[in-house]
Amino acid sequence: MTATLGTTSTTKTPDLGPAVELVSKEEGHRQPLAPEFVSAEDFSPLEVAYDFGRVRREDIEAGPKNIWRYKKLLPVPSNVEEIPNTEPGATRLIQADRLAKALGVKKVWVKDDTGNPTHSFKDRVVAVALAAAREFGFDVLACPSTGNLANAVAAAAARAGWRSVVLIPKTLERAKILTTAVYDGDLIAVDGNYDDVNRLATQLAAEQESWAFVNVNVRPYYSEGSKTLAFEVAEQLGWRLPSQIVVPIASGSQLTKVDKGFREFGQLGLVDETPYKVFGAQATGCSPVSAAFRAGHDVVQPVKPDTIARSLAIGNPADGPYVLDVVNRTGGAIEDVTDEEVVEGIRLLARTEGIFTETAGGVTVATAKKLIETGKLNPDEEIVLLITGDGLKTLDAVEDKIGPKATVSASADAVREALGI
Amino acid sequence: MTATLGTTSTTKTPDLGPAVELVSKEEGHRQPLAPEFVSAEDFSPLEVAYDFGRVRREDIEAGPKNIWRYKKLLPVPSNVEEIPNTEPGATRLIQADRLAKALGVKKVWVKDDTGNPTHSFKDRVVAVALAAAREFGFDVLACPSTGNLANAVAAAAARAGWRSVVLIPKTLERAKILTTAVYDGDLIAVDGNYDDVNRLATQLAAEQESWAFVNVNVRPYYSEGSKTLAFEVAEQLGWRLPSQIVVPIASGSQLTKVDKGFREFGQLGLVDETPYKVFGAQATGCSPVSAAFRAGHDVVQPVKPDTIARSLAIGNPADGPYVLDVVNRTGGAIEDVTDEEVVEGIRLLARTEGIFTETAGGVTVATAKKLIETGKLNPDEEIVLLITGDGLKTLDAVEDKIGPKATVSASADAVREALGI
Repeated sequence: MTATLGTTSTTKTPDLGPAVELVSKEEGHRQPLAPEFVSAEDFSPLEVAYDFGRVRREDIEAGPKNIWRYKKLLPVPSNVEEIPNTEPGATRLIQADRLAKALGVKKVWVKDDTGNPTHSFKDRVVAVALAAAREFGFDVLACPSTGNLANAVAAAAARAGWRSVVLIPKTLERAKILTTAVYDGDLIAVDGNYDDVNRLATQLAAEQESWAFVNVNVRPYYSEGSKTLAFEVAEQLGWRLPSQIVVPIASGSQLTKVDKGFREFGQLGLVDETPYKVFGAQATGCSPVSAAFRAGHDVVQPVKPDTIARSLAIGNPADGPYVLDVVNRTGGAIEDVTDEEVVEGIRLLARTEGIFTETAGGVTVATAKKLIETGKLNPDEEIVLLITGDGLKTLDAVEDKIGPKATVSASADAVREALGI
Repeated sequence: MTATLGTTSTTKTPDLGPAVELVSKEEGHRQPLAPEFVSAEDFSPLEVAYDFGRVRREDIEAGPKNIWRYKKLLPVPSNVEEIPNTEPGATRLIQADRLAKALGVKKVWVKDDTGNPTHSFKDRVVAVALAAAREFGFDVLACPSTGNLANAVAAAAARAGWRSVVLIPKTLERAKILTTAVYDGDLIAVDGNYDDVNRLATQLAAEQESWAFVNVNVRPYYSEGSKTLAFEVAEQLGWRLPSQIVVPIASGSQLTKVDKGFREFGQLGLVDETPYKVFGAQATGCSPVSAAFRAGHDVVQPVKPDTIARSLAIGNPADGPYVLDVVNRTGGAIEDVTDEEVVEGIRLLARTEGIFTETAGGVTVATAKKLIETGKLNPDEEIVLLITGDGLKTLDAVEDKIGPKATVSASADAVREALGI
């Protein structure tokens, strides 16, 4: 099933910059650019193919301080920065010496994507989806979601002046409902679980001609936005690839796109094609890709998620097999960590580097720790950690574990005693 | 009362870059750089005086993408970017056409400071305070606080490997306690109100030689960090000053420093010295400066705060008279808005631009609206709004006003009906 073209698409040829075709991931069938996400030939996911032409560092450096500086490597129009959209990206890459010391390794870099407009990497993919969707003539931005994606879609649609339609399970935490509802789109709470919401989204995507479901019918464009994480890391390192990078796995899309981003930078001569290893991080309560990696399988057995890392809780990850390909090809590894380790990971990053990440970031940090302890990450080579979301959104995960050192009466003596001074 | 020098200060001459002296705001008495905040001569606040030398746009543009690009205009060491600290700044300046349209004006820019490490402008001032405090030989970073400042101090100290001591009233919202406690500093909850906590902080600042209370004994350095908001706005506008800017008022420090930043840029020839008007925004429930402005007074009568805009709830604002000076000198104005208008301001910004701000940002937006309606802001000239904090931290302010459009059963028909399709 694929979505039909948007209503106004006949009046305009979409300008998707360097993008030229869609190609199926399994057998490489090619088809014209359209809001479709599965190949009718081999039923595998469709991916954007490009004709990049020449891209120089100077062109990128002269661009805006957000993801649109990489527009020549994305399926977006050539004047994308002039069109109302959120302006994600250009987030900090922090040299994390105290974390490195705590982990017993030489050098760690933290890519802190909490600085995005709605504080997660989802702003990157949604901004690209919106830019492409506009070219296809859509005028409604939609998604099924349980958190970060809902925030990003509702915010981007508000900024663009589009209607947003976001479907959520009605049991979602109140904070996540509020941070989506505030943008005043059409937020619909469904009396069902995530599977129900996803099913309804797929149904609506098939019948609503002018609706772009970011992670359904415009998914090939949407997912390309994750490449900008790789682009930024490489540019911020001074135009070179890192030797080791740890990426959290939900659907697996981000990990494969980080790899794609590094390869494209290398192929275009923007960086030297030095070897790099990609490592994957999962929560044990939803670790189908980690389990497949451990077993040496090339397919992924779906699981029923049960973890506090809800933004990673996809039991049947669409890009699982491709994640295994990337990790095996680059010589990386995949590990998973318990919920307790996730919280420890959150606290370790906060304590050492002053960055408060959500549970997904805790998964990344804790998995890195485990990969170091088991000798899979080389302690003598640099390690980049992708921190993709914000602790303010998952306060419940740490709520019972942290608090004031002491509660005292309002006297200087009491404070001194509590502080041991 | 002033703090004594830090313990290790005798072993090292502080390198505070272009800073040369402290000068009293009232009578201009000069004294050497030291961790002191009140003049012993005239009892007025001390401010940093500089010998800038030559500062060129190219020097700034070649600097890091954070506030340290302006190090030649701040009281920080010349190698400040090499020393562990948070890396705030370089936040987005958004052209807000949809908000402008809603407000009935020609052009609005939103400076979105929610992109900072702990999502408020406090990261700017705390980073400068930390950099200066290190030069004075301190090794503990401390503050009394009720929210954003606590987050920023605890995070910056963690990143630097310093001990932090943060005093809060024990009645603070659980979310604000968690977002400070996670950094694992010494967070002390006091059985008292904000006044009690402030009193204890002043007491401890006087007796603890190695403790830098960011907003007490190193306040002259700390407050200079707010200039970076002005510097960034001017640079992001293409090296020019805006004609109108609206700034929220708590202690009033930020507003006076925004003005100072614009003047310094002009004096150094980094921008043309074009006229600009500075406007102040308060919540009616804590509007002593607005009341003084309206009455034509040059002093400020303290009030007892009662507003949802808690990060602005300073009833006796130290820089109140200087705010009045700046606003009167530049031809601006000050207004205040009700809590209901604050929430409307939050929702207006979210709905039109996809930016979710805290109550202080709601004050700024709502005040701008009022200043436009009363003809004090010129609708034909551009307006810059400083959005200094994040809506995720003040969810309680909007909690009862927003929510899903509908809650429906898990059927496509129910969703279609709810959406009117």
